[in-house]
Amino acid sequence: MNEQLKGLLAQVSDGSLDITQAQQQIESLYFTDLGHTVLDMDRERRTGHGEVVYCAGKSVSQIHDILSHLDTSGINVLATRLDEVIWQQLAPSFPHAAYDASSRLCSLIHTQPRRCTKGYIAVVSAGTSDASVAEEAAGTIEFYGHEVRRFNDVGVAGIHRLFRHLEEIRGARVVITVAGMEGALASVVGGLVDAPVIAVPTSVGYGANFHGVSALLSMLNSCSSGISVVNIDNGFGAGYLAVMMNDL
Amino acid sequence: MNEQLKGLLAQVSDGSLDITQAQQQIESLYFTDLGHTVLDMDRERRTGHGEVVYCAGKSVSQIHDILSHLDTSGINVLATRLDEVIWQQLAPSFPHAAYDASSRLCSLIHTQPRRCTKGYIAVVSAGTSDASVAEEAAGTIEFYGHEVRRFNDVGVAGIHRLFRHLEEIRGARVVITVAGMEGALASVVGGLVDAPVIAVPTSVGYGANFHGVSALLSMLNSCSSGISVVNIDNGFGAGYLAVMMNDL
Amino acid sequence: MNEQLKGLLAQVSDGSLDITQAQQQIESLYFTDLGHTVLDMDRERRTGHGEVVYCAGKSVSQIHDILSHLDTSGINVLATRLDEVIWQQLAPSFPHAAYDASSRLCSLIHTQPRRCTKGYIAVVSAGTSDASVAEEAAGTIEFYGHEVRRFNDVGVAGIHRLFRHLEEIRGARVVITVAGMEGALASVVGGLVDAPVIAVPTSVGYGANFHGVSALLSMLNSCSSGISVVNIDNGFGAGYLAVMMNDL
Amino acid sequence: MNEQLKGLLAQVSDGSLDITQAQQQIESLYFTDLGHTVLDMDRERRTGHGEVVYCAGKSVSQIHDILSHLDTSGINVLATRLDEVIWQQLAPSFPHAAYDASSRLCSLIHTQPRRCTKGYIAVVSAGTSDASVAEEAAGTIEFYGHEVRRFNDVGVAGIHRLFRHLEEIRGARVVITVAGMEGALASVVGGLVDAPVIAVPTSVGYGANFHGVSALLSMLNSCSSGISVVNIDNGFGAGYLAVMMNDL
Amino acid sequence: MNEQLKGLLAQVSDGSLDITQAQQQIESLYFTDLGHTVLDMDRERRTGHGEVVYCAGKSVSQIHDILSHLDTSGINVLATRLDEVIWQQLAPSFPHAAYDASSRLCSLIHTQPRRCTKGYIAVVSAGTSDASVAEEAAGTIEFYGHEVRRFNDVGVAGIHRLFRHLEEIRGARVVITVAGMEGALASVVGGLVDAPVIAVPTSVGYGANFHGVSALLSMLNSCSSGISVVNIDNGFGAGYLAVMMNDL
Amino acid sequence: MNEQLKGLLAQVSDGSLDITQAQQQIESLYFTDLGHTVLDMDRERRTGHGEVVYCAGKSVSQIHDILSHLDTSGINVLATRLDEVIWQQLAPSFPHAAYDASSRLCSLIHTQPRRCTKGYIAVVSAGTSDASVAEEAAGTIEFYGHEVRRFNDVGVAGIHRLFRHLEEIRGARVVITVAGMEGALASVVGGLVDAPVIAVPTSVGYGANFHGVSALLSMLNSCSSGISVVNIDNGFGAGYLAVMMNDL
Amino acid sequence: MNEQLKGLLAQVSDGSLDITQAQQQIESLYFTDLGHTVLDMDRERRTGHGEVVYCAGKSVSQIHDILSHLDTSGINVLATRLDEVIWQQLAPSFPHAAYDASSRLCSLIHTQPRRCTKGYIAVVSAGTSDASVAEEAAGTIEFYGHEVRRFNDVGVAGIHRLFRHLEEIRGARVVITVAGMEGALASVVGGLVDAPVIAVPTSVGYGANFHGVSALLSMLNSCSSGISVVNIDNGFGAGYLAVMMNDL
Amino acid sequence: MNEQLKGLLAQVSDGSLDITQAQQQIESLYFTDLGHTVLDMDRERRTGHGEVVYCAGKSVSQIHDILSHLDTSGINVLATRLDEVIWQQLAPSFPHAAYDASSRLCSLIHTQPRRCTKGYIAVVSAGTSDASVAEEAAGTIEFYGHEVRRFNDVGVAGIHRLFRHLEEIRGARVVITVAGMEGALASVVGGLVDAPVIAVPTSVGYGANFHGVSALLSMLNSCSSGISVVNIDNGFGAGYLAVMMNDL
Repeated sequence: MNEQLKGLLAQVSDGSLDITQAQQQIESLYFTDLGHTVLDMDRERRTGHGEVVYCAGKSVSQIHDILSHLDTSGINVLATRLDEVIWQQLAPSFPHAAYDASSRLCSLIHTQPRRCTKGYIAVVSAGTSDASVAEEAAGTIEFYGHEVRRFNDVGVAGIHRLFRHLEEIRGARVVITVAGMEGALASVVGGLVDAPVIAVPTSVGYGANFHGVSALLSMLNSCSSGISVVNIDNGFGAGYLAVMMNDL
Repeated sequence: MNEQLKGLLAQVSDGSLDITQAQQQIESLYFTDLGHTVLDMDRERRTGHGEVVYCAGKSVSQIHDILSHLDTSGINVLATRLDEVIWQQLAPSFPHAAYDASSRLCSLIHTQPRRCTKGYIAVVSAGTSDASVAEEAAGTIEFYGHEVRRFNDVGVAGIHRLFRHLEEIRGARVVITVAGMEGALASVVGGLVDAPVIAVPTSVGYGANFHGVSALLSMLNSCSSGISVVNIDNGFGAGYLAVMMNDL
Repeated sequence: MNEQLKGLLAQVSDGSLDITQAQQQIESLYFTDLGHTVLDMDRERRTGHGEVVYCAGKSVSQIHDILSHLDTSGINVLATRLDEVIWQQLAPSFPHAAYDASSRLCSLIHTQPRRCTKGYIAVVSAGTSDASVAEEAAGTIEFYGHEVRRFNDVGVAGIHRLFRHLEEIRGARVVITVAGMEGALASVVGGLVDAPVIAVPTSVGYGANFHGVSALLSMLNSCSSGISVVNIDNGFGAGYLAVMMNDL
Repeated sequence: MNEQLKGLLAQVSDGSLDITQAQQQIESLYFTDLGHTVLDMDRERRTGHGEVVYCAGKSVSQIHDILSHLDTSGINVLATRLDEVIWQQLAPSFPHAAYDASSRLCSLIHTQPRRCTKGYIAVVSAGTSDASVAEEAAGTIEFYGHEVRRFNDVGVAGIHRLFRHLEEIRGARVVITVAGMEGALASVVGGLVDAPVIAVPTSVGYGANFHGVSALLSMLNSCSSGISVVNIDNGFGAGYLAVMMNDL
Repeated sequence: MNEQLKGLLAQVSDGSLDITQAQQQIESLYFTDLGHTVLDMDRERRTGHGEVVYCAGKSVSQIHDILSHLDTSGINVLATRLDEVIWQQLAPSFPHAAYDASSRLCSLIHTQPRRCTKGYIAVVSAGTSDASVAEEAAGTIEFYGHEVRRFNDVGVAGIHRLFRHLEEIRGARVVITVAGMEGALASVVGGLVDAPVIAVPTSVGYGANFHGVSALLSMLNSCSSGISVVNIDNGFGAGYLAVMMNDL
Repeated sequence: MNEQLKGLLAQVSDGSLDITQAQQQIESLYFTDLGHTVLDMDRERRTGHGEVVYCAGKSVSQIHDILSHLDTSGINVLATRLDEVIWQQLAPSFPHAAYDASSRLCSLIHTQPRRCTKGYIAVVSAGTSDASVAEEAAGTIEFYGHEVRRFNDVGVAGIHRLFRHLEEIRGARVVITVAGMEGALASVVGGLVDAPVIAVPTSVGYGANFHGVSALLSMLNSCSSGISVVNIDNGFGAGYLAVMMNDL
Repeated sequence: MNEQLKGLLAQVSDGSLDITQAQQQIESLYFTDLGHTVLDMDRERRTGHGEVVYCAGKSVSQIHDILSHLDTSGINVLATRLDEVIWQQLAPSFPHAAYDASSRLCSLIHTQPRRCTKGYIAVVSAGTSDASVAEEAAGTIEFYGHEVRRFNDVGVAGIHRLFRHLEEIRGARVVITVAGMEGALASVVGGLVDAPVIAVPTSVGYGANFHGVSALLSMLNSCSSGISVVNIDNGFGAGYLAVMMNDL
Repeated sequence: MNEQLKGLLAQVSDGSLDITQAQQQIESLYFTDLGHTVLDMDRERRTGHGEVVYCAGKSVSQIHDILSHLDTSGINVLATRLDEVIWQQLAPSFPHAAYDASSRLCSLIHTQPRRCTKGYIAVVSAGTSDASVAEEAAGTIEFYGHEVRRFNDVGVAGIHRLFRHLEEIRGARVVITVAGMEGALASVVGGLVDAPVIAVPTSVGYGANFHGVSALLSMLNSCSSGISVVNIDNGFGAGYLAVMMNDL
């Protein structure tokens, strides 16, 4: 958009645009205020990353407004936490979108993101039920043009399942571990790899897991070094952070 | 004591002991009421196990009363949670006792317990700081005449330390795992052995370990089967239960 | 499967099977990777125990895949936490399965498990509402070929109900106690029997029971020795562990 | 004090006391404002009960002021939560006081309370370590002139210890149960007696007892009816309430 | 039933009933074991109180079995926590029952309970939304033949509403206070009356009330004496206990 | 109503109204007791503020009674927490009411409130999902006749969005900040303005936000001075308090 | 300091001060960076309020540095949470300071603050043990030149103590309530006054008060309107906020 | 150590070392088992990083053993959580060590670590009291040979303090934020920089900060992306992870 700004300033300079109008047009290069939501229209240019829309807690019409505005501005968008029942109301308006019900991710791509060629990110998950959170991480990584490798159902109850893939996991530059219940996978992986590990506790389990608290505390108190933790079920946050790290 | 009871009844029968006195003497074969504490004088005969005295929260003079009474009755006693500073006041009265400051166990042995020959119990602990709880379990097992093998500082942060001993741990009939922080050791061991696993969370750690809650929740939510849990830092409870299992 | 492995190796040895194919076929004796789930195909041979599938959090199609694969491989399967509404979609595919709506257990038996003849396991539950968790434990024990005896609605509010059955409970080699609300049953039973006691807190109750936390804490803090605890409502875990103990 | 009020009003009536002075003197029959504390000088006349001073969190000099003022006014006083180290500084000023270090109660008696003759109150406690809280309840009951019977160390781990005293406990009009750890005593006693039961959780225990929370939740969720609960370690509150009930 | 027992023993004595049959018939005077539930058939004779059935967590058919059995035995029954949707399935079988949807109480009365003439019990509730819990207490009291007076919507936000009724509340022998949110009503009433106060926290409120925890803690920590607490929303428990107290 | 009271007293004085009738009529100027609810009929005269009805937990018919009674008495009413599905049953009876589904506020205005002219109140909210709570605050402020300015979706993740409006926010006499998740907005705003700040945590978020606890704790522990906190999602409480402050 | 800035700019303008030096000198009008702490040197001029130093967690030497620097700059300082044992090491360096051990406040006054003449602030506290927190609030208010009136030991257990002072409390423009235990005082006062109420929970109490959580939750869930809450024991925060309100 | 291994194997090969001895000597290249602790002697060679010893919970003699063994093996060691009072007993044995009382770090350097030249890591802390945790992070980073820049006392209560340093913070490749109380600094910094942010909650604060829980939850729920969290007060963990990231 730098070019757009330059053009506007040139118009101001030659008097073809008055200052009040210029102010509005310049501001709209950066923000759009929809009333309920203030959109950042400049992130993609600044960071090379598309815009992310967190859909939980927003009404169908709010999500529609936001996606439409970004979409018609030609900005890549990743919608997260978009429940299938809500998506079904939105889908007709966004025929070119890619939606995945398990991860609840929806992406609208206008420009293919530049590929990151530094190496791959491993997403390692403990049980079948953790897979949707793992997929939220993996889908986010792909949205940003990084390579991801998935290792599902390799929890520590049968540690040989993990060891089958150990060399490939060790080859990753960044590792995401996704686990519910007691979340021991993070500590075990953290003790086996030399890469930074992002731990995602999930709410998978019952009773004294307290909707993910057991895995969360487990991961925060890991005896392995090089581990940090994101919120319960926050696959997107882990994927986004992994991309930032892999870009280093 | 059966012989004692038989003798008393014989005296009643031949009239040499009146009924009121007989009642008192019979009852004292089973109970001694010290006012603050009611002692079970018959457990050793019934179960073959000595008596256990939990010392936390008792005054020095209460502990002294209890130990003296049992000791002079010739009953094996295991005192638990006996802090060193309190023991130092008691030690002169019990010169034949064996005290260990790390586990805070004190044993007074009159009759060597019968040796259990069915196999050994493994006590596996994660870090150096967990060793005193592990030792409470191990000392308890030895008090009851069972064989114990100790595996210290084999936490999952360096899982090869555990694997060095895996065959020997797998050889145990019952396994106790002792771990603080995230307590992942229990799940990993549970996934590797076929024996029942007793998990002891410890309060080792800081911050979001909440004095052992993180390890406790971890162990309760273990993805491995065959694991059950005792209270935080309850090495005695784990040891006692392991003995019951090993006696099966 | 040892025989199958021997046969494959013989084929490799006489050159009738090339190494790459042999590797795949040998590995499939042990694992099957369904993408979302990695199945252990060898447990029954190793441990004599059938495979267990935890169904909560898995989709209908995932459960269908897993059960089908194990079933066609002739492996005994116990599906746990299988809600009736999900089972109704699966039932037509598994006409030979036995399903119980109260315990949410479903078993597919190909080979009758060897009977354990060492003695019986007692499952003692406090109230009518605890019965479904108790039944999950009892059904698990039967799946593994052990004898179980059920004692329902014998909570401590009317302790004579428990005492009516005391001798029979004392005859068990292992005792499971199942209780919600204040979970006092575990301590009372623990004080009355000499067998190891597995305590299962249930989420039965309301208000300050916090979905089972009151019973859980009660059981972890039991003043009786020889008690260990599994997760809230974890009838399966208790049953499985009781089987391991009874096999000692 | 009614007589004092009548006298003052007579003086006002005959003009020998002006209204402003009368107002002050009448008010002082009811309140004394020490600045930091407002004393109720009339409770004993109104309710027949002496005044209670909760000492925790008050400075030595504040306690001294309060006790002195009440004492010189001839009011019976019960000081609670008075730690021995603080009492030792106060003792010289109150040579006629009775202090008990275990319950931390101190009583200053001027007029013997009228004896309640309706029956006795039972105070039943689980373990040796619960005795100081039980004694706070028992001492409170005696301060108010009611009969109390103590049953110590009769917890459910050895339920025969409780049954030895069952008839005497059943004879009480009100029962107080005092227990830490899992607090099961309250439910068991509640199921065995027909009197109202006041349950006092204590902070006795360690680990997952969370300073009395386990016993508190246990008692709040009791499956027995006729039980209510006071704060953790609140022996005074239980004793005071038992007296109110026994006075019905 | 004493007469029934006497008759049976007479039959045994004259040989018209053999011992095995006698044993069964005598036992059935006391217990009925429905498989899922063990009924106490003798409580009404022993205590003068009808039987109570807690319906939450029981299936429709279990409740039906229990109510039918007691009802046909001519025992007064109070069913608690009986949701309207479940009641509608049961109602045709119990045409003589009285059901109240707000308190979820259902009573089947065969013999009018003896009236307690010692005085009335006050049920004081804070807000309109607390009324269903208050009504559970009040209905329970009436089931047992005691007089109850209701004081609704008199919370401390407008304390004059409480003061309007103060004299009548002070006239009660026992006071129940029912309040959600911050539960201050219990302390205020406790400071104003001389009767024992049973505090019932309710789950009314939102946010940091944590489903009744705020009111529960408030009541446990009351600065007023003479207050004890039952579980959150436990109107029945409060009513039952108040009856026990009022019977003193 | 003063005039009404004067008239009644005049009638009493001239004997045209007897004392019993007068008492009832005078009391009804102040209270109306609907059985389930006690209405304050005099607040508007005393405080200049209309009456507020909290609808959560009340039945449709209870709300109908309350609104009708106040409405026909000509009192301004603000109904809060009135869910849309309940409102749809009430709407036909109150055609002149203004209802807003997002904030769940419904107002019935008879007399326009006097306008407060001292300045405006700023309502600053963090994310799109916090807007309904913010609107509850804003609508409350308007109901009381104060000026409010709304600043939505200005959370600290993009702090420039906040800074765009900083001068206008600094111009407010009182500032309300509404935020879920980590609630950092309150501290940041608190550090930037000199006005008192009322912080409203919302339940927006997931996982370790624990339904608003994270934002609540954040706000209670703010490092900025001049901040106080209301209950989670309590937009009404914040708006009401802001009005009280702005009236100073 | 405006004058100082003007002088410096004049020097820059006439060339007598070079730009680099000017930059440093201008910045030092606003900040002083002590390495461990960055002091705001301009607050007093901007807001008319002295600087506040929170001492908990700071070392003696850090506190000494900060107080010295501010003191020698002629800025009024209020040090909070300054424990007596630390103060005794600092006192010789600050002979003109006023220290109060109960509230742990220390003030160094150079310029008397302008008196606020709008009215007084009431500080109402529940028990003797709450007085130090109340005094922290009161001392803060006085530091800022506002009038405060103290009402100590007027908790709801004896509500007549509160009512003695009701008119004077109602006369305040802002009311602070300070209470531990169940914190009911806030709701009762909130229902009786029309001024905004700042509620300060204290950690006074024991057991289930959880170091102030019971009072905190009580106050957050108050059924009275117009109440907001600060952190547990945060007397300073309440005092500071009351001053901001009273300045409106 | 590769060379050492090669030499040993050569000796085995030429028969000068028998196999049993060789096994022991080879193993000791990797592990040293001190009984209480198993040391990893090979980490420095494998990872280029020295060994870390966590000292909390270890006895003076255990720490002495560990440090001595590593030190005499010429391995760089970083001891963490080494309290000053313990260090004073150890200092005479390690005259070449560098100890810092604030961060409780002690380093013994034999070989200077290779300098990382990729850029610097920023450590940004909120208040003076957070500095010791920040210094633990910073000292760790320096131990590993990376450049660190410290920004202390720049919390959001005075956000201009942070903005003074914004450009320099934005220049870092990895940012660590250290904050107690409400921990808002992490979200604000996370919204302002494009680098990955490691958030360290500290236990600084009081009351409802619950020893760091408020900051922990704040950081886990941050509305800014690119943030992950380590345990409360875990400065070492943050520093170690930052080094791993900066090495990418």
